[in-house]
Amino acid sequence: MQIIQTINELKNIIALNKEKTIGFVPTMGYLHEGHLALLNKARIDNDFVVASIFVNPAQFGQNEDLDRYPRDIERDTQLATDAGVDILFHPSASEMYPFESGITINVGDLSTKLCGGSRPGHFDGVLKVITKLFNLVQPTNAYFGQKDAQQLAIIETFVNAYNFPVQIVRIPTVREPDGLAKSSRNVFLSTQERDEAVHLYQALQLAKITWEKTTDLTVAIAKGKEHIESNTSGKVDYLEALSYPDLQNVTGETKDILFATAVFFEKARLIDNILT
Amino acid sequence: MQIIQTINELKNIIALNKEKTIGFVPTMGYLHEGHLALLNKARIDNDFVVASIFVNPAQFGQNEDLDRYPRDIERDTQLATDAGVDILFHPSASEMYPFESGITINVGDLSTKLCGGSRPGHFDGVLKVITKLFNLVQPTNAYFGQKDAQQLAIIETFVNAYNFPVQIVRIPTVREPDGLAKSSRNVFLSTQERDEAVHLYQALQLAKITWEKTTDLTVAIAKGKEHIESNTSGKVDYLEALSYPDLQNVTGETKDILFATAVFFEKARLIDNILT
Repeated sequence: MQIIQTINELKNIIALNKEKTIGFVPTMGYLHEGHLALLNKARIDNDFVVASIFVNPAQFGQNEDLDRYPRDIERDTQLATDAGVDILFHPSASEMYPFESGITINVGDLSTKLCGGSRPGHFDGVLKVITKLFNLVQPTNAYFGQKDAQQLAIIETFVNAYNFPVQIVRIPTVREPDGLAKSSRNVFLSTQERDEAVHLYQALQLAKITWEKTTDLTVAIAKGKEHIESNTSGKVDYLEALSYPDLQNVTGETKDILFATAVFFEKARLIDNILT
Repeated sequence: MQIIQTINELKNIIALNKEKTIGFVPTMGYLHEGHLALLNKARIDNDFVVASIFVNPAQFGQNEDLDRYPRDIERDTQLATDAGVDILFHPSASEMYPFESGITINVGDLSTKLCGGSRPGHFDGVLKVITKLFNLVQPTNAYFGQKDAQQLAIIETFVNAYNFPVQIVRIPTVREPDGLAKSSRNVFLSTQERDEAVHLYQALQLAKITWEKTTDLTVAIAKGKEHIESNTSGKVDYLEALSYPDLQNVTGETKDILFATAVFFEKARLIDNILT
Protein backbone atom coordinates (compact mmCIF):
# COMPACT_ATOMS: atom_id res chain seq x y z
CA MET A 1 0.00 0.00 0.00
CA GLN A 2 1.20 3.45 -0.92
CA ILE A 3 0.49 6.43 1.34
CA ILE A 4 -0.01 9.65 -0.58
CA GLN A 5 -0.25 13.13 0.88
CA THR A 6 -0.39 15.42 -2.15
CA ILE A 7 -3.00 15.98 -4.81
CA ASN A 8 -0.41 15.89 -7.61
CA GLU A 9 0.85 12.44 -6.62
CA LEU A 10 -2.73 11.20 -6.37
CA LYS A 11 -3.56 12.57 -9.84
CA ASN A 12 -0.51 10.83 -11.32
CA ILE A 13 -1.43 7.47 -9.82
CA ILE A 14 -5.08 7.72 -10.85
CA ALA A 15 -4.00 8.57 -14.40
CA LEU A 16 -1.89 5.39 -14.45
CA ASN A 17 -4.87 3.25 -13.37
CA LYS A 18 -7.55 4.69 -15.62
CA GLU A 19 -8.39 1.41 -17.28
CA LYS A 20 -9.09 -0.30 -13.95
CA THR A 21 -12.27 -0.26 -11.89
CA ILE A 22 -11.55 1.95 -8.89
CA GLY A 23 -13.26 1.46 -5.54
CA PHE A 24 -13.15 4.43 -3.17
CA VAL A 25 -13.72 4.58 0.59
CA PRO A 26 -13.60 8.14 1.98
CA THR A 27 -13.13 8.24 5.76
CA MET A 28 -12.06 10.55 8.59
CA GLY A 29 -9.80 7.79 9.91
CA TYR A 30 -9.69 6.12 13.35
CA LEU A 31 -10.90 3.09 11.48
CA HIS A 32 -13.27 0.59 13.07
CA GLU A 33 -15.09 -2.51 11.83
CA GLY A 34 -17.65 -0.31 10.07
CA HIS A 35 -14.91 1.14 7.86
CA LEU A 36 -13.41 -2.30 7.37
CA ALA A 37 -16.74 -3.54 5.99
CA LEU A 38 -16.54 -0.76 3.39
CA LEU A 39 -12.92 -1.58 2.53
CA ASN A 40 -13.63 -5.29 2.26
CA LYS A 41 -16.52 -4.74 -0.14
CA ALA A 42 -14.44 -2.27 -2.18
CA ARG A 43 -11.63 -4.84 -2.38
CA ILE A 44 -14.03 -7.54 -3.63
CA ASP A 45 -15.74 -5.31 -6.22
CA ASN A 46 -12.80 -3.46 -7.83
CA ASP A 47 -9.38 -3.82 -9.45
CA PHE A 48 -7.93 -0.91 -7.50
CA VAL A 49 -8.88 0.40 -4.05
CA VAL A 50 -8.33 3.95 -2.82
CA ALA A 51 -9.13 4.95 0.76
CA SER A 52 -8.85 8.48 2.10
CA ILE A 53 -8.29 9.64 5.64
CA PHE A 54 -9.08 13.31 6.01
CA VAL A 55 -10.69 14.96 9.03
CA ASN A 56 -12.49 17.55 6.92
CA PRO A 57 -12.61 20.97 8.64
CA ALA A 58 -15.38 22.12 6.28
CA GLN A 59 -17.90 19.75 7.87
CA PHE A 60 -17.26 20.75 11.50
CA GLY A 61 -19.01 23.68 13.15
CA GLN A 62 -17.15 26.20 15.32
CA ASN A 63 -18.02 24.52 18.60
CA GLU A 64 -17.69 20.96 17.38
CA ASP A 65 -15.01 18.35 17.96
CA LEU A 66 -12.65 18.97 15.01
CA ASP A 67 -9.55 19.39 17.19
CA ARG A 68 -10.23 16.41 19.41
CA TYR A 69 -11.63 14.10 16.71
CA PRO A 70 -9.73 10.85 17.38
CA ARG A 71 -6.75 10.13 15.13
CA ASP A 72 -4.36 7.17 14.90
CA ILE A 73 -2.73 7.14 11.49
CA GLU A 74 -0.28 4.34 12.35
CA ARG A 75 -3.02 1.94 13.37
CA ASP A 76 -5.14 3.05 10.39
CA THR A 77 -2.23 2.40 8.02
CA GLN A 78 -1.93 -1.15 9.35
CA LEU A 79 -5.67 -1.80 9.07
CA ALA A 80 -5.85 -0.40 5.53
CA THR A 81 -2.83 -2.47 4.49
CA ASP A 82 -4.45 -5.59 5.93
CA ALA A 83 -7.68 -4.80 4.08
CA GLY A 84 -5.81 -4.78 0.76
CA VAL A 85 -6.04 -1.05 0.07
CA ASP A 86 -3.78 0.04 -2.81
CA ILE A 87 -3.62 3.79 -2.10
CA LEU A 88 -4.19 5.57 1.19
CA PHE A 89 -4.72 9.28 0.51
CA HIS A 90 -3.95 11.30 3.65
CA PRO A 91 -3.70 15.00 2.76
CA SER A 92 -3.33 18.00 5.06
CA ALA A 93 -6.08 20.61 5.31
CA SER A 94 -3.96 23.13 3.38
CA GLU A 95 -3.36 20.56 0.64
CA MET A 96 -7.10 20.03 0.25
CA TYR A 97 -8.08 23.69 0.67
CA PRO A 98 -5.16 25.81 -0.59
CA PHE A 99 -7.46 28.79 -1.20
CA GLU A 100 -11.05 29.82 -0.58
CA SER A 101 -12.85 30.28 -3.89
CA GLY A 102 -16.08 31.61 -2.42
CA ILE A 103 -17.98 29.03 -4.50
CA THR A 104 -20.08 26.83 -2.21
CA ILE A 105 -22.37 23.84 -2.52
CA ASN A 106 -25.56 24.23 -0.54
CA VAL A 107 -27.59 21.17 0.38
CA GLY A 108 -30.81 23.08 0.99
CA ASP A 109 -33.91 21.27 2.24
CA LEU A 110 -32.31 17.84 2.71
CA SER A 111 -29.95 19.35 5.30
CA THR A 112 -32.66 20.93 7.44
CA LYS A 113 -33.89 17.59 8.81
CA LEU A 114 -32.31 15.27 11.39
CA CYS A 115 -28.64 16.17 12.03
CA GLY A 116 -28.96 19.34 9.96
CA GLY A 117 -30.80 21.06 12.79
CA SER A 118 -27.96 20.89 15.28
CA ARG A 119 -25.11 20.87 12.70
CA PRO A 120 -25.77 23.78 10.31
CA GLY A 121 -23.42 23.74 7.34
CA HIS A 122 -22.25 20.20 8.13
CA PHE A 123 -23.60 18.57 4.97
CA ASP A 124 -22.47 21.50 2.79
CA GLY A 125 -18.96 20.71 4.03
CA VAL A 126 -19.46 17.01 3.31
CA LEU A 127 -20.43 17.72 -0.32
CA LYS A 128 -17.50 20.13 -0.67
CA VAL A 129 -14.96 17.47 0.21
CA ILE A 130 -16.82 14.66 -1.56
CA THR A 131 -16.89 16.66 -4.82
CA LYS A 132 -13.15 17.23 -4.60
CA LEU A 133 -12.41 13.61 -3.70
CA PHE A 134 -14.66 12.19 -6.43
CA ASN A 135 -13.02 14.49 -8.99
CA LEU A 136 -9.55 13.47 -7.85
CA VAL A 137 -10.07 9.71 -7.44
CA GLN A 138 -12.63 9.31 -10.28
CA PRO A 139 -13.95 6.12 -8.67
CA THR A 140 -16.13 3.54 -10.39
CA ASN A 141 -17.73 2.71 -7.04
CA ALA A 142 -17.76 4.63 -3.76
CA TYR A 143 -18.70 3.02 -0.45
CA PHE A 144 -20.67 4.62 2.38
CA GLY A 145 -22.10 3.24 5.60
CA GLN A 146 -25.81 3.33 6.33
CA LYS A 147 -24.98 4.48 9.84
CA ASP A 148 -24.63 7.99 8.39
CA ALA A 149 -28.05 7.65 6.77
CA GLN A 150 -28.64 11.33 6.11
CA GLN A 151 -25.15 11.77 4.64
CA LEU A 152 -25.76 8.76 2.40
CA ALA A 153 -29.16 10.10 1.26
CA ILE A 154 -27.66 13.51 0.48
CA ILE A 155 -24.70 12.04 -1.43
CA GLU A 156 -26.99 9.73 -3.43
CA THR A 157 -29.24 12.68 -4.32
CA PHE A 158 -26.26 14.86 -5.23
CA VAL A 159 -24.64 12.22 -7.43
CA ASN A 160 -27.96 11.62 -9.13
CA ALA A 161 -28.87 15.29 -9.65
CA TYR A 162 -25.40 16.31 -10.84
CA ASN A 163 -24.59 13.13 -12.82
CA PHE A 164 -21.33 12.27 -11.08
CA PRO A 165 -19.99 9.19 -12.89
CA VAL A 166 -19.81 6.97 -9.81
CA GLN A 167 -21.91 4.20 -8.33
CA ILE A 168 -22.75 4.75 -4.64
CA VAL A 169 -22.74 1.49 -2.68
CA ARG A 170 -24.61 1.34 0.65
CA ILE A 171 -23.06 -0.81 3.37
CA PRO A 172 -25.13 -1.85 6.44
CA THR A 173 -24.18 -0.51 9.86
CA VAL A 174 -21.72 -2.69 11.77
CA ARG A 175 -22.57 -3.07 15.46
CA GLU A 176 -20.96 -4.18 18.71
CA PRO A 177 -22.28 -7.51 20.06
CA ASP A 178 -24.79 -5.64 22.25
CA GLY A 179 -26.08 -3.60 19.30
CA LEU A 180 -24.24 -0.27 19.68
CA ALA A 181 -23.33 1.06 16.23
CA LYS A 182 -19.57 1.19 15.65
CA SER A 183 -18.33 4.80 15.63
CA SER A 184 -15.01 6.56 15.99
CA ARG A 185 -16.67 8.76 18.60
CA ASN A 186 -17.54 5.81 20.90
CA VAL A 187 -14.04 6.23 22.37
CA PHE A 188 -15.26 9.43 24.06
CA LEU A 189 -17.91 7.60 26.12
CA SER A 190 -17.42 7.01 29.85
CA THR A 191 -17.84 3.41 31.05
CA GLN A 192 -21.36 4.20 32.24
CA GLU A 193 -22.27 6.00 29.01
CA ARG A 194 -20.92 3.08 26.98
CA ASP A 195 -23.29 0.76 28.83
CA GLU A 196 -26.19 3.16 28.32
CA ALA A 197 -25.46 3.75 24.64
CA VAL A 198 -26.96 0.39 23.65
CA HIS A 199 -30.35 1.98 24.32
CA LEU A 200 -30.15 4.11 21.15
CA TYR A 201 -30.50 1.00 19.00
CA GLN A 202 -33.10 -0.47 21.35
CA ALA A 203 -35.13 2.75 21.23
CA LEU A 204 -35.10 2.73 17.43
CA GLN A 205 -36.28 -0.89 17.40
CA LEU A 206 -38.98 -0.05 19.93
CA ALA A 207 -40.17 2.87 17.78
CA LYS A 208 -40.22 0.68 14.69
CA ILE A 209 -42.16 -2.13 16.40
CA THR A 210 -44.61 0.37 17.89
CA TRP A 211 -45.14 1.88 14.43
CA GLU A 212 -45.73 -1.54 12.91
CA LYS A 213 -48.26 -2.41 15.63
CA THR A 214 -50.11 0.90 15.92
CA THR A 215 -49.35 2.70 12.61
CA ASP A 216 -49.20 5.78 14.84
CA LEU A 217 -45.89 7.51 14.29
CA THR A 218 -46.39 10.09 17.05
CA VAL A 219 -46.79 7.32 19.61
CA ALA A 220 -43.88 5.37 18.12
CA ILE A 221 -41.51 8.35 18.26
CA ALA A 222 -42.61 9.25 21.80
CA LYS A 223 -41.96 5.68 22.98
CA GLY A 224 -38.50 5.67 21.44
CA LYS A 225 -37.56 9.00 23.00
CA GLU A 226 -38.91 8.00 26.34
CA HIS A 227 -36.81 4.83 26.23
CA ILE A 228 -33.60 6.82 25.75
CA GLU A 229 -34.52 9.38 28.39
CA SER A 230 -35.33 6.68 30.95
CA ASN A 231 -32.30 4.52 30.28
CA THR A 232 -29.44 6.92 29.60
CA SER A 233 -27.87 10.08 30.97
CA GLY A 234 -27.77 11.47 27.43
CA LYS A 235 -29.87 14.29 25.99
CA VAL A 236 -31.94 13.41 22.92
CA ASP A 237 -31.11 15.76 20.00
CA TYR A 238 -33.80 14.15 17.87
CA LEU A 239 -35.61 10.88 17.28
CA GLU A 240 -37.49 11.09 14.02
CA ALA A 241 -39.08 9.01 11.28
CA LEU A 242 -38.78 10.13 7.65
CA SER A 243 -39.12 8.57 4.24
CA TYR A 244 -35.84 7.28 2.80
CA PRO A 245 -33.85 8.41 0.87
CA ASP A 246 -35.83 11.60 0.19
CA LEU A 247 -36.20 12.50 3.88
CA GLN A 248 -39.79 13.73 3.67
CA ASN A 249 -42.63 13.30 6.15
CA VAL A 250 -44.03 9.78 6.15
CA THR A 251 -47.28 9.38 4.20
CA GLY A 252 -49.44 6.46 3.13
CA GLU A 253 -47.24 6.12 0.06
CA THR A 254 -43.90 5.98 1.86
CA LYS A 255 -42.06 2.72 1.17
CA ASP A 256 -38.91 2.85 3.27
CA ILE A 257 -39.05 4.61 6.63
CA LEU A 258 -35.88 5.76 8.36
CA PHE A 259 -36.02 5.82 12.16
CA ALA A 260 -33.04 7.94 13.21
CA THR A 261 -31.77 9.38 16.46
CA ALA A 262 -28.94 11.53 17.79
CA VAL A 263 -28.08 11.75 21.46
CA PHE A 264 -25.65 14.08 23.23
CA PHE A 265 -23.48 12.40 25.84
CA GLU A 266 -20.95 14.39 27.86
CA LYS A 267 -18.14 14.28 25.30
CA ALA A 268 -19.77 12.69 22.26
CA ARG A 269 -22.88 13.07 20.16
CA LEU A 270 -23.87 9.63 18.89
CA ILE A 271 -26.17 8.85 15.96
CA ASP A 272 -27.92 5.67 14.91
CA ASN A 273 -30.77 4.62 12.64
CA ILE A 274 -32.70 1.70 11.25
CA LEU A 275 -34.66 1.34 8.04
CA THR A 276 -38.01 -0.46 7.86
CA MET B 1 -21.70 13.05 -36.52
CA GLN B 2 -24.19 11.52 -34.13
CA ILE B 3 -26.93 13.62 -32.53
CA ILE B 4 -27.83 12.46 -29.05
CA GLN B 5 -30.74 13.64 -26.96
CA THR B 6 -30.67 11.43 -23.87
CA ILE B 7 -28.26 11.17 -20.97
CA ASN B 8 -28.22 7.37 -21.14
CA GLU B 9 -27.11 7.32 -24.77
CA LEU B 10 -24.44 9.92 -24.00
CA LYS B 11 -23.14 7.85 -21.07
CA ASN B 12 -22.91 4.75 -23.26
CA ILE B 13 -20.93 6.54 -25.95
CA ILE B 14 -18.57 8.20 -23.48
CA ALA B 15 -17.93 4.80 -21.86
CA LEU B 16 -16.96 3.43 -25.28
CA ASN B 17 -14.45 6.26 -25.83
CA LYS B 18 -12.80 6.32 -22.43
CA GLU B 19 -9.30 5.71 -23.74
CA LYS B 20 -9.47 8.69 -26.11
CA THR B 21 -8.80 12.34 -25.37
CA ILE B 22 -12.18 14.06 -25.37
CA GLY B 23 -12.60 17.71 -26.33
CA PHE B 24 -15.83 19.35 -25.17
CA VAL B 25 -17.52 22.54 -26.40
CA PRO B 26 -20.66 23.43 -24.39
CA THR B 27 -22.89 25.95 -26.20
CA MET B 28 -26.42 27.30 -26.24
CA GLY B 29 -26.52 26.85 -30.02
CA TYR B 30 -27.21 29.35 -32.80
CA LEU B 31 -23.58 28.81 -33.64
CA HIS B 32 -21.41 31.62 -34.99
CA GLU B 33 -17.74 31.96 -35.86
CA GLY B 34 -16.90 32.31 -32.17
CA HIS B 35 -18.25 28.81 -31.50
CA LEU B 36 -16.54 27.50 -34.62
CA ALA B 37 -13.19 28.72 -33.28
CA LEU B 38 -13.84 26.59 -30.17
CA LEU B 39 -14.86 23.56 -32.24
CA ASN B 40 -11.85 23.89 -34.54
CA LYS B 41 -9.42 24.02 -31.63
CA ALA B 42 -11.17 21.08 -29.96
CA ARG B 43 -10.90 19.10 -33.21
CA ILE B 44 -7.15 19.81 -33.47
CA ASP B 45 -6.40 18.98 -29.82
CA ASN B 46 -8.43 15.79 -29.25
CA ASP B 47 -9.25 12.30 -30.53
CA PHE B 48 -12.96 12.75 -29.94
CA VAL B 49 -15.05 15.93 -29.96
CA VAL B 50 -18.34 16.42 -28.13
CA ALA B 51 -20.37 19.61 -28.52
CA SER B 52 -23.55 20.36 -26.61
CA ILE B 53 -26.42 22.62 -27.55
CA PHE B 54 -28.61 23.35 -24.58
CA VAL B 55 -30.34 26.63 -23.82
CA ASN B 56 -30.02 26.22 -20.08
CA PRO B 57 -33.09 27.52 -18.21
CA ALA B 58 -31.14 27.57 -14.93
CA GLN B 59 -28.99 30.48 -16.10
CA PHE B 60 -31.84 32.74 -17.25
CA GLY B 61 -33.67 35.10 -14.90
CA GLN B 62 -37.46 35.40 -14.89
CA ASN B 63 -37.53 38.48 -17.11
CA GLU B 64 -34.72 37.41 -19.41
CA ASP B 65 -34.75 36.12 -22.96
CA LEU B 66 -34.97 32.33 -22.43
CA ASP B 67 -38.05 31.89 -24.61
CA ARG B 68 -36.81 34.05 -27.45
CA TYR B 69 -33.14 33.01 -27.31
CA PRO B 70 -32.36 32.31 -30.98
CA ARG B 71 -32.39 28.66 -32.06
CA ASP B 72 -31.62 26.95 -35.38
CA ILE B 73 -30.77 23.31 -34.77
CA GLU B 74 -30.67 22.39 -38.46
CA ARG B 75 -28.11 25.01 -39.31
CA ASP B 76 -26.17 24.18 -36.11
CA THR B 77 -26.14 20.49 -37.05
CA GLN B 78 -24.62 21.34 -40.43
CA LEU B 79 -21.99 23.64 -38.90
CA ALA B 80 -21.04 21.09 -36.24
CA THR B 81 -20.79 18.34 -38.86
CA ASP B 82 -18.55 20.54 -40.99
CA ALA B 83 -16.36 21.30 -37.96
CA GLY B 84 -15.74 17.58 -37.47
CA VAL B 85 -17.73 17.15 -34.25
CA ASP B 86 -18.25 13.46 -33.35
CA ILE B 87 -21.19 13.83 -30.95
CA LEU B 88 -23.72 16.63 -30.74
CA PHE B 89 -25.54 16.42 -27.42
CA HIS B 90 -28.88 18.21 -27.64
CA PRO B 91 -31.04 17.32 -24.62
CA SER B 92 -34.40 18.74 -23.58
CA ALA B 93 -34.75 20.70 -20.34
CA SER B 94 -36.62 17.81 -18.71
CA GLU B 95 -33.86 15.40 -19.75
CA MET B 96 -31.25 17.61 -18.06
CA TYR B 97 -33.36 18.50 -15.02
CA PRO B 98 -35.74 15.58 -14.38
CA PHE B 99 -36.17 16.59 -10.72
CA GLU B 100 -35.18 19.43 -8.39
CA SER B 101 -32.80 18.16 -5.72
CA GLY B 102 -32.67 21.38 -3.72
CA ILE B 103 -28.86 21.12 -3.80
CA THR B 104 -27.39 24.27 -5.36
CA ILE B 105 -23.98 25.61 -6.31
CA ASN B 106 -23.49 29.22 -5.25
CA VAL B 107 -20.80 31.29 -6.91
CA GLY B 108 -20.63 33.87 -4.12
CA ASP B 109 -18.32 36.88 -4.45
CA LEU B 110 -17.19 36.24 -8.02
CA SER B 111 -20.78 36.57 -9.20
CA THR B 112 -21.43 39.95 -7.58
CA LYS B 113 -19.24 41.84 -10.06
CA LEU B 114 -19.86 42.75 -13.72
CA CYS B 115 -22.80 40.78 -15.16
CA GLY B 116 -23.69 39.38 -11.73
CA GLY B 117 -25.24 42.70 -10.74
CA SER B 118 -27.96 42.66 -13.38
CA ARG B 119 -28.22 38.86 -13.72
CA PRO B 120 -28.57 37.46 -10.17
CA GLY B 121 -28.32 33.67 -10.10
CA HIS B 122 -27.02 33.55 -13.68
CA PHE B 123 -23.60 32.12 -12.85
CA ASP B 124 -25.06 29.68 -10.29
CA GLY B 125 -27.10 28.30 -13.19
CA VAL B 126 -24.00 28.16 -15.39
CA LEU B 127 -22.10 26.09 -12.80
CA LYS B 128 -25.13 23.83 -12.33
CA VAL B 129 -25.21 22.84 -15.98
CA ILE B 130 -21.43 22.80 -16.37
CA THR B 131 -21.07 20.39 -13.43
CA LYS B 132 -23.61 18.07 -15.00
CA LEU B 133 -22.07 18.30 -18.46
CA PHE B 134 -18.50 17.78 -17.21
CA ASN B 135 -19.65 14.74 -15.20
CA LEU B 136 -21.46 13.30 -18.23
CA VAL B 137 -18.87 14.02 -20.94
CA GLN B 138 -15.77 13.61 -18.73
CA PRO B 139 -13.73 15.74 -21.13
CA THR B 140 -9.95 15.96 -21.22
CA ASN B 141 -10.21 19.54 -22.49
CA ALA B 142 -13.14 21.97 -22.44
CA TYR B 143 -13.22 25.10 -24.60
CA PHE B 144 -14.64 28.49 -23.63
CA GLY B 145 -14.57 31.86 -25.33
CA GLN B 146 -12.95 34.88 -23.69
CA LYS B 147 -15.95 36.92 -24.78
CA ASP B 148 -17.74 35.55 -21.71
CA ALA B 149 -14.81 36.61 -19.55
CA GLN B 150 -16.58 36.44 -16.22
CA GLN B 151 -18.06 33.02 -17.02
CA LEU B 152 -14.59 31.81 -17.98
CA ALA B 153 -13.04 33.20 -14.78
CA ILE B 154 -15.73 31.55 -12.64
CA ILE B 155 -15.41 28.20 -14.40
CA GLU B 156 -11.61 28.26 -14.11
CA THR B 157 -11.89 29.04 -10.39
CA PHE B 158 -14.53 26.33 -9.87
CA VAL B 159 -12.53 23.67 -11.71
CA ASN B 160 -9.44 24.61 -9.74
CA ALA B 161 -11.13 24.77 -6.32
CA TYR B 162 -13.12 21.55 -6.79
CA ASN B 163 -10.45 19.60 -8.72
CA PHE B 164 -12.55 18.74 -11.76
CA PRO B 165 -10.32 16.54 -13.97
CA VAL B 166 -10.51 18.78 -17.04
CA GLN B 167 -8.26 21.33 -18.69
CA ILE B 168 -10.03 24.62 -19.44
CA VAL B 169 -8.86 26.14 -22.74
CA ARG B 170 -9.41 29.88 -23.34
CA ILE B 171 -10.20 30.92 -26.91
CA PRO B 172 -9.93 34.61 -27.97
CA THR B 173 -13.08 36.51 -28.92
CA VAL B 174 -13.96 36.33 -32.62
CA ARG B 175 -15.09 39.68 -34.07
CA GLU B 176 -16.89 41.05 -37.12
CA PRO B 177 -14.63 43.00 -39.52
CA ASP B 178 -15.59 46.26 -37.79
CA GLY B 179 -14.76 44.89 -34.33
CA LEU B 180 -18.17 43.87 -32.95
CA ALA B 181 -17.82 40.68 -30.94
CA LYS B 182 -19.68 37.75 -32.49
CA SER B 183 -22.74 36.83 -30.41
CA SER B 184 -25.91 34.85 -30.93
CA ARG B 185 -27.77 37.87 -29.57
CA ASN B 186 -26.51 40.24 -32.33
CA VAL B 187 -29.45 38.98 -34.40
CA PHE B 188 -31.75 40.99 -32.14
CA LEU B 189 -30.13 44.34 -33.06
CA SER B 190 -31.90 46.80 -35.35
CA THR B 191 -29.87 48.05 -38.34
CA GLN B 192 -29.07 51.26 -36.50
CA GLU B 193 -28.13 49.41 -33.28
CA ARG B 194 -25.91 47.06 -35.29
CA ASP B 195 -24.00 50.05 -36.61
CA GLU B 196 -23.74 51.56 -33.13
CA ALA B 197 -22.67 48.32 -31.49
CA VAL B 198 -19.13 48.63 -32.78
CA HIS B 199 -18.65 51.36 -30.18
CA LEU B 200 -18.57 48.82 -27.33
CA TYR B 201 -15.22 47.50 -28.54
CA GLN B 202 -14.00 51.01 -29.35
CA ALA B 203 -14.97 52.22 -25.87
CA LEU B 204 -13.04 49.35 -24.27
CA GLN B 205 -9.99 50.18 -26.35
CA LEU B 206 -10.33 53.85 -25.45
CA ALA B 207 -10.53 52.98 -21.75
CA LYS B 208 -7.48 50.75 -22.02
CA ILE B 209 -5.42 53.36 -23.86
CA THR B 210 -6.46 56.06 -21.41
CA TRP B 211 -5.44 53.80 -18.53
CA GLU B 212 -2.06 53.12 -20.12
CA LYS B 213 -1.48 56.84 -20.69
CA THR B 214 -2.82 58.22 -17.41
CA THR B 215 -2.75 55.23 -15.00
CA ASP B 216 -6.00 56.75 -13.73
CA LEU B 217 -8.71 54.07 -13.87
CA THR B 218 -11.53 56.44 -12.90
CA VAL B 219 -10.77 58.67 -15.87
CA ALA B 220 -10.30 55.66 -18.16
CA ILE B 221 -13.67 54.15 -17.18
CA ALA B 222 -15.45 57.49 -17.49
CA LYS B 223 -14.04 58.02 -20.98
CA GLY B 224 -15.15 54.57 -22.07
CA LYS B 225 -18.67 55.03 -20.72
CA GLU B 226 -18.94 58.47 -22.24
CA HIS B 227 -17.95 57.02 -25.63
CA ILE B 228 -20.79 54.50 -25.55
CA GLU B 229 -23.32 57.03 -24.31
CA SER B 230 -22.37 59.54 -27.03
CA ASN B 231 -22.28 57.06 -29.89
CA THR B 232 -25.09 54.61 -29.24
CA SER B 233 -28.75 54.54 -28.27
CA GLY B 234 -27.94 51.78 -25.74
CA LYS B 235 -27.93 52.06 -21.97
CA VAL B 236 -24.65 51.15 -20.24
CA ASP B 237 -25.20 48.40 -17.66
CA TYR B 238 -21.55 48.62 -16.56
CA LEU B 239 -18.11 49.41 -17.85
CA GLU B 240 -15.55 48.23 -15.33
CA ALA B 241 -11.92 47.29 -14.92
CA LEU B 242 -11.00 44.37 -12.66
CA SER B 243 -8.04 42.06 -12.16
CA TYR B 244 -8.27 38.86 -14.17
CA PRO B 245 -9.14 36.07 -13.51
CA ASP B 246 -9.82 36.78 -9.83
CA LEU B 247 -12.09 39.80 -10.56
CA GLN B 248 -10.81 41.99 -7.74
CA ASN B 249 -10.22 45.73 -7.68
CA VAL B 250 -7.11 46.73 -9.60
CA THR B 251 -4.07 47.44 -7.40
CA GLY B 252 -0.39 48.11 -8.05
CA GLU B 253 0.17 44.35 -8.08
CA THR B 254 -2.49 43.50 -10.67
CA LYS B 255 -0.99 41.83 -13.73
CA ASP B 256 -3.87 41.32 -16.14
CA ILE B 257 -6.66 43.88 -16.21
CA LEU B 258 -10.04 43.05 -17.69
CA PHE B 259 -11.93 45.96 -19.22
CA ALA B 260 -15.50 44.74 -19.59
CA THR B 261 -18.80 46.29 -20.55
CA ALA B 262 -22.46 45.37 -20.95
CA VAL B 263 -24.94 47.54 -22.80
CA PHE B 264 -28.71 47.22 -23.06
CA PHE B 265 -30.12 47.76 -26.54
CA GLU B 266 -33.83 47.53 -27.20
CA LYS B 267 -34.02 43.76 -27.61
CA ALA B 268 -30.54 42.59 -26.66
CA ARG B 269 -28.04 43.08 -23.88
CA LEU B 270 -24.55 42.84 -25.41
CA ILE B 271 -21.29 42.20 -23.56
CA ASP B 272 -17.68 42.64 -24.60
CA ASN B 273 -14.26 42.86 -22.97
CA ILE B 274 -10.55 43.14 -23.57
CA LEU B 275 -7.61 42.07 -21.47
CA THR B 276 -4.48 44.19 -21.05
